[in-house]
Amino acid sequence: MASEKRLEVVTCTAPVNIAVIKYWGKRDEELILPINSSLSVTLHQDQLKTTTTAAISRDFTEDRIWLNGREEDAGQPRLQACLREIRRLARKRRSDGHEDPLPLSLSYKVHVASVNNFPTAAGLASSAAGYACLAYALARVYGVESDLSEVARRGSGSACRSLYGGFVEWQMGERADGKDSIARQVAPESHWPELRVLILVVSTERKPTGSTAGMQTSVETSALLRFRAEALVPARMAEMTRCVRERDFQAFGQLTMKDSNQFHATCLDTFPPISYLSDTSRRVIHLVHRFNAHHRRTKAAYTFDAGANAVIFTLDDAVAEFVAAVRHSFPPELNGDKFLKGLPVEPVLLSDELKAALGADRTPGGIKYIIATRVGPGPQVLDDPGAHLLGPDGLPKAAA
Amino acid sequence: MASEKRLEVVTCTAPVNIAVIKYWGKRDEELILPINSSLSVTLHQDQLKTTTTAAISRDFTEDRIWLNGREEDAGQPRLQACLREIRRLARKRRSDGHEDPLPLSLSYKVHVASVNNFPTAAGLASSAAGYACLAYALARVYGVESDLSEVARRGSGSACRSLYGGFVEWQMGERADGKDSIARQVAPESHWPELRVLILVVSTERKPTGSTAGMQTSVETSALLRFRAEALVPARMAEMTRCVRERDFQAFGQLTMKDSNQFHATCLDTFPPISYLSDTSRRVIHLVHRFNAHHRRTKAAYTFDAGANAVIFTLDDAVAEFVAAVRHSFPPELNGDKFLKGLPVEPVLLSDELKAALGADRTPGGIKYIIATRVGPGPQVLDDPGAHLLGPDGLPKAAA
Repeated sequence: MASEKRLEVVTCTAPVNIAVIKYWGKRDEELILPINSSLSVTLHQDQLKTTTTAAISRDFTEDRIWLNGREEDAGQPRLQACLREIRRLARKRRSDGHEDPLPLSLSYKVHVASVNNFPTAAGLASSAAGYACLAYALARVYGVESDLSEVARRGSGSACRSLYGGFVEWQMGERADGKDSIARQVAPESHWPELRVLILVVSTERKPTGSTAGMQTSVETSALLRFRAEALVPARMAEMTRCVRERDFQAFGQLTMKDSNQFHATCLDTFPPISYLSDTSRRVIHLVHRFNAHHRRTKAAYTFDAGANAVIFTLDDAVAEFVAAVRHSFPPELNGDKFLKGLPVEPVLLSDELKAALGADRTPGGIKYIIATRVGPGPQVLDDPGAHLLGPDGLPKAAA
Repeated sequence: MASEKRLEVVTCTAPVNIAVIKYWGKRDEELILPINSSLSVTLHQDQLKTTTTAAISRDFTEDRIWLNGREEDAGQPRLQACLREIRRLARKRRSDGHEDPLPLSLSYKVHVASVNNFPTAAGLASSAAGYACLAYALARVYGVESDLSEVARRGSGSACRSLYGGFVEWQMGERADGKDSIARQVAPESHWPELRVLILVVSTERKPTGSTAGMQTSVETSALLRFRAEALVPARMAEMTRCVRERDFQAFGQLTMKDSNQFHATCLDTFPPISYLSDTSRRVIHLVHRFNAHHRRTKAAYTFDAGANAVIFTLDDAVAEFVAAVRHSFPPELNGDKFLKGLPVEPVLLSDELKAALGADRTPGGIKYIIATRVGPGPQVLDDPGAHLLGPDGLPKAAA
């Protein structure tokens, strides 16, 4: 019998994704099965990524996890569900007859360290990237090659969409056991090179209602949500898929805005009502509509998740002018060069007509900063051993 | 043949009404027919009323109207529709064989003067009270005794609900000609004497989207609104009627809050989206939910129309504590005794537990003032000639 390995370490990176047809509400809380399908855009890891090192060793006495340098509770149900699922897949693989030269014992404990290259306080949903990364890393460790949607999903529903680059759908599935509730790529990251994404990080007021509890209350109390899921989303998924495949920005942008608004409408129809949109969010919405009205076409589109940050889609020929419009209506309080992060955006002047169209309202400091990014690839393995976040002892390396 | 009268003057008062099952969206723009029924509470005229004097004379050369002392455009389509309708009813009455001892010529022009005893800037929908008052006054002038729903409705949809006191429904009707789209009283003003109404007038930011255009866009673009009107409102109307008839405040309050939220949800599902709820509105919503959670029962309920002002329902045994809670979370910037208008409310201290439940958030000056009122009667005729707003010459009397 082949001897077992003492320690296996894998480091991966995974992206953040932003849904343009929103997921909100589960039909199964344990298996994390949604009441409707969703479609997302994977953002580029140069600007936003989670890096996760997973280490498995017979010397570890318990599962442990560090997030952004801080140890968290590894007994947390979502994490344990994730681990159970990957171990189940690994066990299945072996019983299907695959031979590993040095199989790891599935009873070994796992150490996980994960860091984001973007601030957690930015309110960007990092659990999707985090669980996708974890699933991907553990799959590499255990040699699992099957679909990882379930592994990622059990950690955080939308994490399955972060398993692919480009444009990704999470098919809701019909089976009660969730085996057909999987993510698949609709188009690769190279499909629409002109598409740009701006994340407008707004000044945070109150901590928003957590999405797990929020969507549960929505499912229980909102008749509008049920109608949306059953009667409206299927056609929207088909239309959004068409928009992406045909690179129809006009239609893509309008449907993106409408779906964001409809999601937030169902939150308001929840009891007690959930409001993720702040006054600043609404001002961003107004700015986009005025920007588009001025141009007489949809040149920018907003979407908001369960928080006040705005995600704006434009094509590359409109980014500079849109950023200038944001600076105009939300004059930065920060030093100018800290306001814009990520991809470079050239400074341009606004025309007088556009300034007039945007109106006199100013909200100084309403937007803390902007991250400019684009569509990006799915998870990656890092081959460089220097990239590991855990040392040979399985503990986090000292911060650089 | 009886000679015609030279001048006829009638002065009436009419109330404001607040919908608890909301009207939003027309199936006929010209006849003002709604896509769903609605149910409202008539507020007491001691606190809020419109006073209207209608004068008709053969000496008048044109229709003229003064609102709060300022002359407005009498050619305005809604006003003209109102006048045409009342004249049609008067003509019909005569052709049905009713004899008036001194019939007025239906070709005479009309002068109308109307004043509110509440500030227009308060954003309280005064067109309902105004058109109800006009319809009622003109009916008295012309001796029309039939149902005035259509007359009032043609001026402003919800005005038909101001034709009655107490609790009023506006049945949407099914006929294309709108003859069955009428208001009727569900319960009189004496039915629920413990019910109180607080109007929280918030500091106005931007002028909100007008409701006529807003609801038209909603009908055109929101699938959630169509579903609400067809599938949800009928059962809500039945349930709200039950709540009123049985004086079930728990259920009345919850359904009121849910319907307000659902109305605003359909506004958000409109494209471009309409947001009537400001950050202050949302803070009021949070306050009510925390107040109720503290008491473990629904003791206060909010509803919002097409604007940021909050209307709160409570029973009389909760008013004082709720007003104290508002003062606590929205400390008045005004001199204390200008903050509370209308019915007297005794000052009470908040318990420490309630203060803790309300949380640390303070919004100084967020609420400009409160009007405390209750359920009230329908339109009234003023018999005192001194009450006329127009002199014998048909022109506004000098302001007192």
